[in-house]
Amino acid sequence: MDYAKSAPREVRALIRAEKITGHTSGMCDGYAQANLAVLPAEYAYDFLLFTQRNPKSCPVLEVSDRGSRSLKKIAPGADIARDIPRYRIYKNGVPEGEYTDVSKFWREDFVSFLIGCSFSFESELIAGDIPVRHIEEGKNVPMYITNIDCESAGIFHGKMVVSMRPLLPELAVRAVTLTAAMPRVHGAPVHIGDPESIGIGDIARPDFGDPVTIKQGETPVFWACGVTPQSVIMSAKPSIAITHAPGHMLITDIKNVLLK
Amino acid sequence: MDYAKSAPREVRALIRAEKITGHTSGMCDGYAQANLAVLPAEYAYDFLLFTQRNPKSCPVLEVSDRGSRSLKKIAPGADIARDIPRYRIYKNGVPEGEYTDVSKFWREDFVSFLIGCSFSFESELIAGDIPVRHIEEGKNVPMYITNIDCESAGIFHGKMVVSMRPLLPELAVRAVTLTAAMPRVHGAPVHIGDPESIGIGDIARPDFGDPVTIKQGETPVFWACGVTPQSVIMSAKPSIAITHAPGHMLITDIKNVLLK
Repeated sequence: MDYAKSAPREVRALIRAEKITGHTSGMCDGYAQANLAVLPAEYAYDFLLFTQRNPKSCPVLEVSDRGSRSLKKIAPGADIARDIPRYRIYKNGVPEGEYTDVSKFWREDFVSFLIGCSFSFESELIAGDIPVRHIEEGKNVPMYITNIDCESAGIFHGKMVVSMRPLLPELAVRAVTLTAAMPRVHGAPVHIGDPESIGIGDIARPDFGDPVTIKQGETPVFWACGVTPQSVIMSAKPSIAITHAPGHMLITDIKNVLLK
Repeated sequence: MDYAKSAPREVRALIRAEKITGHTSGMCDGYAQANLAVLPAEYAYDFLLFTQRNPKSCPVLEVSDRGSRSLKKIAPGADIARDIPRYRIYKNGVPEGEYTDVSKFWREDFVSFLIGCSFSFESELIAGDIPVRHIEEGKNVPMYITNIDCESAGIFHGKMVVSMRPLLPELAVRAVTLTAAMPRVHGAPVHIGDPESIGIGDIARPDFGDPVTIKQGETPVFWACGVTPQSVIMSAKPSIAITHAPGHMLITDIKNVLLK
């Protein structure tokens, strides 16, 4: 069962019951998925300003009220602390562990940031006859930490993380056009071609996710990625942060077409 | 002299020298203009969250660092406290006075929010053969406080302010298409037609700016307006806030086409 045709609410229930614990790529066709960053309120202003200054990597879909595990707009009824298949906890910038449920760690001063995800534009790419390799190969998308500096805000600074999809050059152009129209889910690519010029040493060894096949004649196309906050959290070292594990997203009730 | 062909830096210098003190509609063709809201840092998180939750009325172009009167991206070299032709100071939500220079009121804890302005899409409308009535009539754009609730964030809540341009119905459709492509300057209209249904009692008496002629067969078209923060400041009553006077904007160095 690939859950491509399932409703977000149903898949979230299976995730909450820990019947789904893997990555969510390709699930709930047509619905937006979201990256998560949870921070204590003392860091919330700096982080929100960071997202404003880095809209390509951090397009905010919703910010929770302080202490709340609920979302009003993008996923009413969801529990932020239980409805993601896999979470990561960072302490002082160091990943401390992965969990399928973080409700026992929740604090009254936590603020949750839900950030748009490139999975949203993949159905648009597929509809435009553009192949998405990691979906074809049943893998998580490959993600890389680049040498591109984010614009800093308060304590938050660090390098941009990108996701990569290999495409024939003529399809890369079409992919730019289609994704440029979706700025709330990272928008147009940040780079096309030579991985080294953005600090990626080995395209076959992504920092997060899985490697995918790059066929003869294809060029790698890179989009800003919602895992960027994790790279930034590692640099900024807030006392605690909770994120999703890369590729393991919150599936929202918002249709991708409404993010255009 | 209408300053339509002047460079932003030149016009800002004339404003700083108080040689221009009127509204900026139609000035520096092709360059974005920005609304201003300055608040003490204690309100900055709530206000930034308010802008995130109300992107149509409050599309943020840049947020200053705390205490700084400079902008890094949209107008390097500009002085936030002197380069706007007319400012308003609100104390506890009440307009206390208008000034052409607010540098003597500046505080180390002030944070400045620069918000996209509908003047940016007017050159796009004109390029698309859509008449912009207040420019034709040499007036400030008419603005109205509606009955549309903004989404609240912390102390900030209130009604949306809109700007209005009267258009023939077939041109209204074209105006939707053109402005939808510019979400960083308010994007598509929020309402077309009947003013009463959004709480506007008398279209001939705007709350801000000037009334304009509505010709036979034309329908009023309403866009979310960057004066909304002033309506919200009047509701939320922060101890102090400094804004631009409606229509009296910061002229930035950013070209409108780059806000698409």
